Amino acid sequence: MSLLVVGSVAFDAIETPFGKTDKIVGGAASYISLAASYFTKSTNLVAVVGEDFPQAFIDHLNQHGVDTTGLQVKKGEKSFFWSGKYHTDMNSRDTLVTELNVLADFDPIVPEAYQNCEFLMLGNLTPKVQQTVIERLQKRPKLVVMDTMNFWMEVALDDLKETLKKVDVLTINDEEARQLSGEYSLVKAAAKIQEMGPKYLIIKKGENGALLFHGKEVFFAPALPLEDVFDPTGAGDTFAGGFIGYLAKTGDISFENMKNAIIFGSAMASFCVEKFGTERIINLSQAELDARIQAFRNLVRFDIPATL
Amino acid sequence: MSLLVVGSVAFDAIETPFGKTDKIVGGAASYISLAASYFTKSTNLVAVVGEDFPQAFIDHLNQHGVDTTGLQVKKGEKSFFWSGKYHTDMNSRDTLVTELNVLADFDPIVPEAYQNCEFLMLGNLTPKVQQTVIERLQKRPKLVVMDTMNFWMEVALDDLKETLKKVDVLTINDEEARQLSGEYSLVKAAAKIQEMGPKYLIIKKGENGALLFHGKEVFFAPALPLEDVFDPTGAGDTFAGGFIGYLAKTGDISFENMKNAIIFGSAMASFCVEKFGTERIINLSQAELDARIQAFRNLVRFDIPATL
Repeated sequence: MSLLVVGSVAFDAIETPFGKTDKIVGGAASYISLAASYFTKSTNLVAVVGEDFPQAFIDHLNQHGVDTTGLQVKKGEKSFFWSGKYHTDMNSRDTLVTELNVLADFDPIVPEAYQNCEFLMLGNLTPKVQQTVIERLQKRPKLVVMDTMNFWMEVALDDLKETLKKVDVLTINDEEARQLSGEYSLVKAAAKIQEMGPKYLIIKKGENGALLFHGKEVFFAPALPLEDVFDPTGAGDTFAGGFIGYLAKTGDISFENMKNAIIFGSAMASFCVEKFGTERIINLSQAELDARIQAFRNLVRFDIPATL
Repeated sequence: MSLLVVGSVAFDAIETPFGKTDKIVGGAASYISLAASYFTKSTNLVAVVGEDFPQAFIDHLNQHGVDTTGLQVKKGEKSFFWSGKYHTDMNSRDTLVTELNVLADFDPIVPEAYQNCEFLMLGNLTPKVQQTVIERLQKRPKLVVMDTMNFWMEVALDDLKETLKKVDVLTINDEEARQLSGEYSLVKAAAKIQEMGPKYLIIKKGENGALLFHGKEVFFAPALPLEDVFDPTGAGDTFAGGFIGYLAKTGDISFENMKNAIIFGSAMASFCVEKFGTERIINLSQAELDARIQAFRNLVRFDIPATL
């Protein structure tokens, strides 16, 4: 089923304990689209870049089956740029530079051919822009998934709450879930956030895995223990891309199938962090993905008889 | 199969965001023995208390099938006492008081009837004392499991390393694994620690679950997401008690069976944190335990076909 991805396509400059990069391609929608492309070939992208953005990456997306008709290229303008430095624990980072550039007045135009998409993934953006996309779709998608971050809770909480009312699945990290709900317990936080709109909540805990909440049900997916986490940039977006890509592939939005989707998302994210930027997820083989899913199976599978 | 538990039996005074206690019974061996008692009725205890220790708790242990012949009661002396206050995140705490009392010169005498035990659980104690217990056993147990903490890495690292050479399974938390190995990556830390002696390493991550490493194999058990973690004191010991209790019950020390043991340990720990001290684990029903195991099954079970 067709998937619409909206989010940033941008440049990042990253420093981790393992090295640093010059400007490389990043942005939520880049990671989401690439990750989703391993599951569905009906991905449509709405985003904006400047004249400085490399055509080679757009070609890459197209080769992955991503339709870039909705990618606006602004003449004479520059792409969004973020630069950050990770601390030793890789769970925290300092932002060194944020240049909004073309993102400052991004108008998310949805091409006619993208109407009737069945799955919508809203990457982290101004909540107003996310809401605009939903409003511009003539038919509500079967599933709307939204990512956001603490920044919007601080500067645009009312807008964020309005947008939350219109989505089915929210993905945020544990600290953001606590901030948004005012609850320390993630179980209580999940209950409060579900009252704000999204009937499904995914709490991302980085190297500590991810939780999916829905009513009284909860599912946990671990992160794969890795020798090294080389660069966590984009891991959350790659996770989201694998998640919604698998749902779009199967067309099944039951809680049971979302569990599988979260495992696929986690597998994609486990690749993402092994190299800088999108390098590791731009050219994965099916065999690599199969082996990684098997690793997740082995990681958590135990066999206690139902009655002892 | 018979289990020997060595560790502290003591008093704690605990403050958490949910309340505070006067002196209540605590100590690693108290939690370990109680948790193990849900799986095996052949548990033997070696520990030391003062004259101030309540006979009622010893009676409780006996009712749980714990043999307390090896529990030394020192006339005119006081039991070990620890007092601490947890921060909001429950993952960190300040120690307010530590009174070693009888623990200062604890000589772990192993009663003749305890010889030939097949499982040995060494709760957190001076590494020298842990080593003495191993040396005093005429026959090496089938499995020796040891818990320790960062404090001994700081004040008795050489002793600790000597003791590590003699054990099969080490249980420590993530920060301690990093400290002991000098590696930030837990995968690398696990490899280094296995070279120090223990062929199995359990890394406890509190609300983020636990990892079992053995050679290239790894297993992950989540912690159950709870509405509230009321008091984390003793959770790690309760985990260890459930783990070794299940192994002693089944007599099977394969990696596969250790996975099950870790789930039972995690289930016991999930009860422990629901109330202060040992209150919640002193009177569990089989139905409660069965339901909790089912919750762990549901929490991580997913069903991705082997070939997509």
